Amino acid sequence: MLGNTFGRMFRVTTCGESYGGGLAAICDGVPPGIELCDADIQEELDKRRPGQSDIDSPRQETDQVQIFSGLRDGYTTGAPVGMIVGNVDTLPQHVKEYEDARHLIRPGHAEYTYRYKYGDYVDWCGAGRASGRETVGRVAAGAVAKKILAREGIRIAAYVSELSDIRAEISGMSFDEREQNALKNEIFCPDLATAEKMLQLTRKIKEDGDTLGGVVEILAVGVPPGLGEPVFDKLSATLAHGLMSIPAVKGCEIGTGFHSTRMLGSECNDIPYLKEGRVRFRTNNSGGIDGGISNGEDILVRIAVKPTSTISIAQRTVNMETMEEADLAAITRRDATICGRICAVAAAMSRIVILDHLMMWRGYDAVSGIEHKFGW
Amino acid sequence: MLGNTFGRMFRVTTCGESYGGGLAAICDGVPPGIELCDADIQEELDKRRPGQSDIDSPRQETDQVQIFSGLRDGYTTGAPVGMIVGNVDTLPQHVKEYEDARHLIRPGHAEYTYRYKYGDYVDWCGAGRASGRETVGRVAAGAVAKKILAREGIRIAAYVSELSDIRAEISGMSFDEREQNALKNEIFCPDLATAEKMLQLTRKIKEDGDTLGGVVEILAVGVPPGLGEPVFDKLSATLAHGLMSIPAVKGCEIGTGFHSTRMLGSECNDIPYLKEGRVRFRTNNSGGIDGGISNGEDILVRIAVKPTSTISIAQRTVNMETMEEADLAAITRRDATICGRICAVAAAMSRIVILDHLMMWRGYDAVSGIEHKFGW
Amino acid sequence: MLGNTFGRMFRVTTCGESYGGGLAAICDGVPPGIELCDADIQEELDKRRPGQSDIDSPRQETDQVQIFSGLRDGYTTGAPVGMIVGNVDTLPQHVKEYEDARHLIRPGHAEYTYRYKYGDYVDWCGAGRASGRETVGRVAAGAVAKKILAREGIRIAAYVSELSDIRAEISGMSFDEREQNALKNEIFCPDLATAEKMLQLTRKIKEDGDTLGGVVEILAVGVPPGLGEPVFDKLSATLAHGLMSIPAVKGCEIGTGFHSTRMLGSECNDIPYLKEGRVRFRTNNSGGIDGGISNGEDILVRIAVKPTSTISIAQRTVNMETMEEADLAAITRRDATICGRICAVAAAMSRIVILDHLMMWRGYDAVSGIEHKFGW
Amino acid sequence: MLGNTFGRMFRVTTCGESYGGGLAAICDGVPPGIELCDADIQEELDKRRPGQSDIDSPRQETDQVQIFSGLRDGYTTGAPVGMIVGNVDTLPQHVKEYEDARHLIRPGHAEYTYRYKYGDYVDWCGAGRASGRETVGRVAAGAVAKKILAREGIRIAAYVSELSDIRAEISGMSFDEREQNALKNEIFCPDLATAEKMLQLTRKIKEDGDTLGGVVEILAVGVPPGLGEPVFDKLSATLAHGLMSIPAVKGCEIGTGFHSTRMLGSECNDIPYLKEGRVRFRTNNSGGIDGGISNGEDILVRIAVKPTSTISIAQRTVNMETMEEADLAAITRRDATICGRICAVAAAMSRIVILDHLMMWRGYDAVSGIEHKFGW
Repeated sequence: MLGNTFGRMFRVTTCGESYGGGLAAICDGVPPGIELCDADIQEELDKRRPGQSDIDSPRQETDQVQIFSGLRDGYTTGAPVGMIVGNVDTLPQHVKEYEDARHLIRPGHAEYTYRYKYGDYVDWCGAGRASGRETVGRVAAGAVAKKILAREGIRIAAYVSELSDIRAEISGMSFDEREQNALKNEIFCPDLATAEKMLQLTRKIKEDGDTLGGVVEILAVGVPPGLGEPVFDKLSATLAHGLMSIPAVKGCEIGTGFHSTRMLGSECNDIPYLKEGRVRFRTNNSGGIDGGISNGEDILVRIAVKPTSTISIAQRTVNMETMEEADLAAITRRDATICGRICAVAAAMSRIVILDHLMMWRGYDAVSGIEHKFGW
Repeated sequence: MLGNTFGRMFRVTTCGESYGGGLAAICDGVPPGIELCDADIQEELDKRRPGQSDIDSPRQETDQVQIFSGLRDGYTTGAPVGMIVGNVDTLPQHVKEYEDARHLIRPGHAEYTYRYKYGDYVDWCGAGRASGRETVGRVAAGAVAKKILAREGIRIAAYVSELSDIRAEISGMSFDEREQNALKNEIFCPDLATAEKMLQLTRKIKEDGDTLGGVVEILAVGVPPGLGEPVFDKLSATLAHGLMSIPAVKGCEIGTGFHSTRMLGSECNDIPYLKEGRVRFRTNNSGGIDGGISNGEDILVRIAVKPTSTISIAQRTVNMETMEEADLAAITRRDATICGRICAVAAAMSRIVILDHLMMWRGYDAVSGIEHKFGW
Repeated sequence: MLGNTFGRMFRVTTCGESYGGGLAAICDGVPPGIELCDADIQEELDKRRPGQSDIDSPRQETDQVQIFSGLRDGYTTGAPVGMIVGNVDTLPQHVKEYEDARHLIRPGHAEYTYRYKYGDYVDWCGAGRASGRETVGRVAAGAVAKKILAREGIRIAAYVSELSDIRAEISGMSFDEREQNALKNEIFCPDLATAEKMLQLTRKIKEDGDTLGGVVEILAVGVPPGLGEPVFDKLSATLAHGLMSIPAVKGCEIGTGFHSTRMLGSECNDIPYLKEGRVRFRTNNSGGIDGGISNGEDILVRIAVKPTSTISIAQRTVNMETMEEADLAAITRRDATICGRICAVAAAMSRIVILDHLMMWRGYDAVSGIEHKFGW
Repeated sequence: MLGNTFGRMFRVTTCGESYGGGLAAICDGVPPGIELCDADIQEELDKRRPGQSDIDSPRQETDQVQIFSGLRDGYTTGAPVGMIVGNVDTLPQHVKEYEDARHLIRPGHAEYTYRYKYGDYVDWCGAGRASGRETVGRVAAGAVAKKILAREGIRIAAYVSELSDIRAEISGMSFDEREQNALKNEIFCPDLATAEKMLQLTRKIKEDGDTLGGVVEILAVGVPPGLGEPVFDKLSATLAHGLMSIPAVKGCEIGTGFHSTRMLGSECNDIPYLKEGRVRFRTNNSGGIDGGISNGEDILVRIAVKPTSTISIAQRTVNMETMEEADLAAITRRDATICGRICAVAAAMSRIVILDHLMMWRGYDAVSGIEHKFGW
C-alpha cells in the first residue's frame, strides 16, 4: 500500500485498521505556539464516533485520543504531532463473524480489490485498512489543522444538504447556523425541520435492512484570495483529491458544479463589483475559486456519498477461496447512512487541504515581495 | 506559481503561456523501447487544436510539436521526453486588444486571482498561463502515456455526453464506437444524431453571443484490477485531482456519482459473479473502482465543464488599476463551447493518472511476490 | 518543522522527542506477506540502545517497540506498519536539569537554531526532536526494510572503520565477519584487535571529560545492477541524503570518495571484465555505483561522525534569554562516542534508501518490458 | 528514468542529452517581479561551457539559451520559467565515433549500468543523458535561483580548493576574492599562484593522456538562520543530495567534515558568543549548520570530484554486445579535469537547494507567527 501520506507542506500520515491495535496520525508542518490538547482532537473525533445514535453503527468505540509527541507545556513545539487512538470494541464474537465470512466479497466493499492486490495476507477482519475507521486518523489531523486555521480566521463546516431525495433548505443560513444546527441532530443537517424528515426516512429504510446516501456540503469562510496553485494543483483539484479519497465518496463539485453545465456563460459568470474597497462577486457560481485560486468569496464544495454498502438484506456474491458463487447473509452492525458521520471527515480533509495551500502560498509569496492590493 | 509537475512515477512538468514563446512538456518515467514520433503527439494535439470549426475559437494555431529529447532512432531511450510547441497566432492586433483591456477582470476568468497573487507583473496577454492553451502540454504528455498504455492493452476515450440540457444516448455503444464517432463531429459526441442537435444549439447560442457547458465522459477499458492506492491516493481521488485541474472543470464523478446518493444500498451495490474464471460485477455503479482500487470493470468518470467564460455580450466588471467599476465590451475570439476540445485534455489527464498508478502498483507488487489470482 | 517523511515508494514518517510520550514510525509501501514481529524490530533497536556499556550514555531506556498496525496473523498485510516506542527514563531530576539550563546553548547542539526557528515554544527538554533519540524511528523503519530486502538477497552492514586517528583493518574481511564481529564489541568495530585499542582510547578520553568522532562504513552486498535514478536521484545522492540526515554526520563518500581526488583517471577507472557470464569490475573505486546506478558490485559508503557534542568539560556559551554570555557546567549523562550506536542508524537509513530505489526501479522496469541481459 | 525533478517549493525539471535536439529546464516556484533575461542565464552557462581553454574538452558548444516562458516585459510573471539550449557541435564524424564504439563500456562511465537498465534502446551517442551536458539544465535553473537569492542578500560561490595533491590557500580570502579570482583562471581556483601550478600539472597530465580530480568548495554567505528541516531534510542532507547528484562527485562534507572525526568534542564544538546583538560562533566547524538548520554563519561545503573518466590511454574493457573482453582505443575529445567547469554546476545546485529551503521555511514560518529574536 502506498499513499498514506497527504499534503506538501502540512503533511498528514496515517496508519491503522479496524481491528488492529489502534489508529495513528502524524502531522508534519505544524507551527510552534499552537495551544493544543487531547480535548481539541477529541471534540472532532466525537463528531464521527459511532454508537451514538440509533441510525449509526452500534459499534462501541470510545475513540479516546492521546497526543504523544509535538507538545510541550500545552503548546505545539514545531515538532510533528503524533496522535494515537486505540480500538476497543473488537470482541472475539465480532472477529469470529468476520473470520467466518472472510472469503466472501461484501458487495460495495473493497474485499475483492484488496484480495486481488494484497493476496491472502490481506487483513480480513472488519475490512482492515479499507474500513471507515481509517478516517479516525484524518479527523485527528484535521483537528490540528483547525486550530491553526482558526488563528488565520478561516473556518470550515461540513453538513448534510441532501439525504436521498430529501433536500434541505440551507442557502439563507449563516455559517454559524449551519455549523451549530448540524450538531443538533443525528443526521448532521442544519435545516432542522428537514433533518427530522431525513431521520424518519433513515429509520424506515433501516427497518427495511437497507441504507441511504446523500450529499454533504463543505463551506469554508474567511479564506483570503490567493490560495491554490494554477495548473495541476488548483485549490479545486486538491480539494477534490482530498475529498474523493474519503471512503464512499463518488463525486465532488465546486460552486454550481454539475448544474453549471446547463447554464449559459452569461448566467454562470460571476460579475465582479466593489464593496468596501475590495473586489467581490455578485454571485458565487465559481464556489470561491477562479483559475484554481481562491477569490475571497466563500469556498463551497459538495460531495456525493453513496449509500452504505453494508446492508442487512441477503445478497448474492462470490467466495474468493472456492471461486464459487455464494450467498452473503444479512449483516447487522452497520450505519443506516454514513452521511452524518462523514461530515467530520469531510471538514477535516478540507482543512488539511486549505492549510497546505496556505503554507505553500505563504512560502512562495514571502520570496516574491509583492505588495498585495485589493484590500486583503 | 507552484504545482506545474504532476505524478509520482510518470511525472509530467509543463510550462508556457498563451502568448509566450511556446509551450513545453517534459515527461519523466518514460520507459525505453516505445516507438514514438512527432506524429504520435500531433494526433492528440490536433484533437484540441482551435480554429478547426465554426464553433471553436478562430485562433489559428498550427500546434506543431517537436520532440527534442528522450528519443534515439525512433524509440524512447528511457530519458525524459521533452516536447515543445510554438505559439503562432500572436499577432500585434491581438496583443493590443489584450493590452487595452489588461486591467479589466473578464468575468469567469482568472484575472483577479492572478493579479492579486502575482501582482502587477502578471502576464496580461491572452490570460497567460491561465489560458486554455496551457493544456497543450497536458495533451502532449498524455500522448506519450497513451503509447505506453497501449502496450498494456489499456485504452481511454473521452467524449461529450451532455451539452447544456441535451443528453446523448451512449450507454449501449462499444468503446470503439464512442471513440470513433466522437471524432466525426465538431462537438465530439458519439451519438451522431444528438451531436447534430448539439451543434445546432451551439450555433444558435453563439449567434446570441453566449456560450454553453456540458458533461464530458471518460471511459477507460482494459484496466486490470489493482490500480489505485487505498487511502489518500485512491484511483478515484487522483483521477479527480487530475481532471479537476483542467481549466473550466467544476465537478467530477465516478460511476453513478451524484445519482448514487438517491439510490438504496441494495440498488447501488454491484453484485459480483463469476465469468470465465474471473470475478465480474453485474452492474458498474462503482465506475470500476472499489475501495479506491480498480476492479477490472470499465472505469467511468464524468466531469462538469462550465460554459466558456468568454462571451460576446458586454458585461459589467471592475478595473483593477483604477479600482472602479467598468464595462467590458464584447469579445469576439472565443469558443462557443469548449466541451469538444476539452475531451482531448480529459483523455490525456486520465492516461497520465492511470499510467502513474500502474507504475506505482508494479513497483510495489514486484517486491511483494504475491501470486495474483482471479484470472488476471 | 517539515521533512519528517522520507522516500518515494517505501516511505517512512517518524515523530517523537527525547522526553515526550514516545517515538513512532509509520512505514508506507510495505508489501504484504512479510513475516514480522516485534522481535524483528527489537533486534535492531537493541543495537542502538543506550545504557549498555560504560562508554555509552547511562540513560536507561528499554526501547520496547510495539507494532500496532499493518500486521495480521504475524504477517504484513500491505497496510502501513505503525510502530511505537515509549520513553521510560525521563525522571523528574533529569527534566529539572534540562529546565535549569534551558536558555543556554549547549555548544555543538541545535538549541540556538531551534530557538531561533521555533521560538520560545521549542521543546527544551533533552533536546526534544533534535535529540539522537529521534533515530529510534529510523531504526524501527529500517528493520522493516531489512526484512523485505532479505527476500531479495540484499544485506547491509554498518560498522566503525575509524575512531579518531585509529584505523581498523577491514578490507580483507567478508561481509559476515564485518557484521558479526562488529556485534562483539562496544565500539562496533569488526577488527577486534583494533576495537580493543579504540575502546581504551574512548575510556581515556571519557575520563578527560571529552568525546571522540570516527568513520562508519556501510557495506551493501547482493544489490543487483539497476538501482538509482540517473539525474537528481542517483543512488549515491539519495544515500548521501539519507545518511547526512542522521544527527552528527558531517560527511559522506562513495567508494574511494575524497581519496579519488588524488588519483589519476587511469587509476580511478574500474576496468570491467567478464566473470561467470556477468560484467564485473577489477576494482571498486566507484563504490558499486556508475552514473548514479548500482553496477552489481558491493555498495560501499563511508560517513564522518563528529565527536559527541555533549562533553563534561565546562564551556563558554550564551544565555538566549538574557542575551548574555555564560558558563555551561559540565554535563554528565552522555556518550563518549556515538560511533558505535550510530551504526544501527546508518544501516537502517541505507536499507530504507535502497529499498525505495528497488521499488522505484521495479515499477519503472515493469512497464518497459526490457529483457535484461548480463546474467542478472 | 525517474528523478528528473528536484526540489519541493523551488522545483527544477530538466531533460536533454549530449547529442539530442537540446537541453531544457523548467523552473517552478519562481516568484513574480524578478528582472530576468537570457543574458542572466548565459553568464552562468558560460562558466561551464566547454571549448574555452586548452584543458577543457574541445567540443564547441555555443550554449546559447532561450527563455521561452515565464517572462513578460523583462520580468518574471510567476509562471514557470522554461529555458532551452540547443546542441550544436554534433557533427556526423563525432556521432560515428560513438556509434563505432557503442557496445564498449568506457571505464568510469555509465554505459554498462545504462545498458543494463534501459536495454538496447539506450542512447549510445555521447553518453546520452549520462553526459556531463545534462548539467546545462542545472546551471540554467541555478541562474534563476541566483537572481532570486540576490534579493535576499544570499550569495554563493564555488571554486577549486584542491587539484590532485595541490592544495590552494583560500581560508583568509573574502567571498568577493574567492568569487572573482576564480573567474580569472581556467582552473577556477581563487589562489592565483596555486592556480598556475594546478594548470601546469593539468597540462602535463593531459600530455600523458591522463586526467585529474580535485576538491570543489562551495561557500554561501548571507544565509540567515532558520533554513533546513530538522530530521530527514536537514540543510546539510539536501545539499549533499543536490551536490552528490552531479556527475563525477563522489563525496561531500560540511564544515570540517571528515577532519572532524579526528577532533575532540572540546575542539570541534563551536563556542557561541555575542556580537552586535547576534549570537555568533567563534569557530565554524559546523559549516554553518547546527541540527540541520543554518545558524547564520557561512555555509561551507566541499565535494570530491573524481578524475575525468575519459582518458586518451587505451584501456581494457568489455563489449556488451558480443560479451567478450576488448580494447578501448584512446579517446581524444575530453577534459583533462572537470574541476573547473563543475564549479558552475555546484554553485547552481547549492542555490537551488538553499532557495528551496528558504521558501519552505518562509511558508512554515508565516503560519507560526513567531517573533524571531537574536537580531536577524
